[in-house]
Amino acid sequence: MSKKRVLSGMQTTGKLHLGNLLGALNNWVSMQEEYECYYFAADWHALSSNYEETGNLKENLVDMGVNWLSAGVDPEKSVLFIQSLIHEHAVLHLLFSMITPIPWLERVPSYKEKMEQVANKDLHTYGFLGYPVLQAADIVLYKADFVPVGIDQLPHLELTREIVRRFHDIYKAQVFVEPQPKMSEVPKLPGVDGRKMSKSYNNAIYLSDTKDEMFKKIKNIITDPARVRKTDPGDPEKCVAYSFHKVFTPTDDNLQIVSDCKTAAIGCVACKKKLAENIFARINPLLEKRAYWNERKPEVIDILMAGTEKARTQAKETLARAESAMKINAGNLMPQVK
Amino acid sequence: MSKKRVLSGMQTTGKLHLGNLLGALNNWVSMQEEYECYYFAADWHALSSNYEETGNLKENLVDMGVNWLSAGVDPEKSVLFIQSLIHEHAVLHLLFSMITPIPWLERVPSYKEKMEQVANKDLHTYGFLGYPVLQAADIVLYKADFVPVGIDQLPHLELTREIVRRFHDIYKAQVFVEPQPKMSEVPKLPGVDGRKMSKSYNNAIYLSDTKDEMFKKIKNIITDPARVRKTDPGDPEKCVAYSFHKVFTPTDDNLQIVSDCKTAAIGCVACKKKLAENIFARINPLLEKRAYWNERKPEVIDILMAGTEKARTQAKETLARAESAMKINAGNLMPQVK
Repeated sequence: MSKKRVLSGMQTTGKLHLGNLLGALNNWVSMQEEYECYYFAADWHALSSNYEETGNLKENLVDMGVNWLSAGVDPEKSVLFIQSLIHEHAVLHLLFSMITPIPWLERVPSYKEKMEQVANKDLHTYGFLGYPVLQAADIVLYKADFVPVGIDQLPHLELTREIVRRFHDIYKAQVFVEPQPKMSEVPKLPGVDGRKMSKSYNNAIYLSDTKDEMFKKIKNIITDPARVRKTDPGDPEKCVAYSFHKVFTPTDDNLQIVSDCKTAAIGCVACKKKLAENIFARINPLLEKRAYWNERKPEVIDILMAGTEKARTQAKETLARAESAMKINAGNLMPQVK
Repeated sequence: MSKKRVLSGMQTTGKLHLGNLLGALNNWVSMQEEYECYYFAADWHALSSNYEETGNLKENLVDMGVNWLSAGVDPEKSVLFIQSLIHEHAVLHLLFSMITPIPWLERVPSYKEKMEQVANKDLHTYGFLGYPVLQAADIVLYKADFVPVGIDQLPHLELTREIVRRFHDIYKAQVFVEPQPKMSEVPKLPGVDGRKMSKSYNNAIYLSDTKDEMFKKIKNIITDPARVRKTDPGDPEKCVAYSFHKVFTPTDDNLQIVSDCKTAAIGCVACKKKLAENIFARINPLLEKRAYWNERKPEVIDILMAGTEKARTQAKETLARAESAMKINAGNLMPQVK
């Protein structure tokens, strides 16, 4: 039996941080064994909320490729590609746009949420509303059986499924695979200030940070505000550093830290030093590989281009089938000659 | 000095009728001398309001090519092409979608009008709202200086100009030509029932009708309802046949008809017989050429494909310039290597 197929994309909005690594990226690596994986740099999606800040997009793209390879995403096992180089995404997005009711898009919870949250830029654009339509095209072009999603992205995937069903219903043909969600449990890592780790909050530890920079950021992680002096006992549950320990520190050591914190047997400075050691121990292999691939960027680009070629073949095939089902494949007009 | 460039498209929603001939098509023919013309079959646009009825799209496309050539559109002078075969339209549409505010689209008068008028199908789709965004891409890809428009399409063209200005403003680069409207006076031809000639009203005389069919339709043109008997005097201004005479009958003959109608010197049957003769005299050359090209559909298709190749070269060049201005041309990542 052939492997099931997984599709997942990553926006090229900025440098990857520890949260991205623990969330999507490690998940990508582990899925490679069981699935045939299509992983892509979503550079067009990056425009939907960052259309005014495109200056670093290409740099981010190359850095993303470096990170993928450094984390263990394997171009021999998975197809790595760049969305904007496969114009079939834009074409299928356009075709889907014709059959997608606007209320379907307006009711996506993340749409209204993001519109409310992001106050510093105008997201009331046609493209931002259509984000899930492009996403639907991304997914079905590669006949993905599964898409790894967090709980908040479930409505997006459901919208893809609805568009697929509507297409099949209107054109009386089964063209696409209806993708299933693949829920994955990922460790929750906050930013150094306790909020969600995010570029826009300026609270992220980046894979491209130097060790010194990382160390400084770890040193500044917010701890239990009630623990003013080293001799005060602390409450780990109110300490952001402890959230990091839960992810990076082995369980036995972690139990010790909890007990030492509660009895003030360890100070915050020492505790964070341990944390830094554990974080470095975990990500050192990746940092070393980053150093390797950073010296070989032309090769990274070649890998992305080769994957893009491979993905394009699949995308062309699916688009041709969709156009045939719609009876609009204008490249094939000769049968109209009577 | 090189010729200014004109761009114009025609939806492949159905067979062309007399109104299309007198409106757009004759205008296309006459513009060929003064301008470098890009004329295209807007088959993607046809989907925006007809996504459920695509069965005849390819047939209509070929018939459209037959009509263009029969009317005198000359592939030696003008570039004739098919929109859906040039994926750059979909890509630039996607890029423009990112910077186009939704209120700009919602306020286009024809949008709300059509939503209200067309009750029998659901046009509340993402693609129908985005119609003018695709149109903007169509126009600027070919650096058109002028777009022939009727008064009701002026807001569409203004939207294109606004998108162009916004793009130039955001990306600090002059990439596109801001197209100007080319208002053209076209003879107003109603349908045989006096309403606007339109496929959806079932009141059109098609270029593909046989002469018998045309004659029957002309015979049924609605006349002054107050003229019940042949001996009653008629009022030409209340007669739809007279609207046709104004377009197809030479002025002197027409003055005679007006006077004969008002004095009941001519009956409606005879009057319409004259009209039919005048219509046939006018369109006979086209009908003969239609017979010629209908026998040579493979050649028609070849002409469309050759024009599409030529148009694609221009479209690729413009899109590349747009992507460079946005700094998102992922096909050119090597300069990111430091």
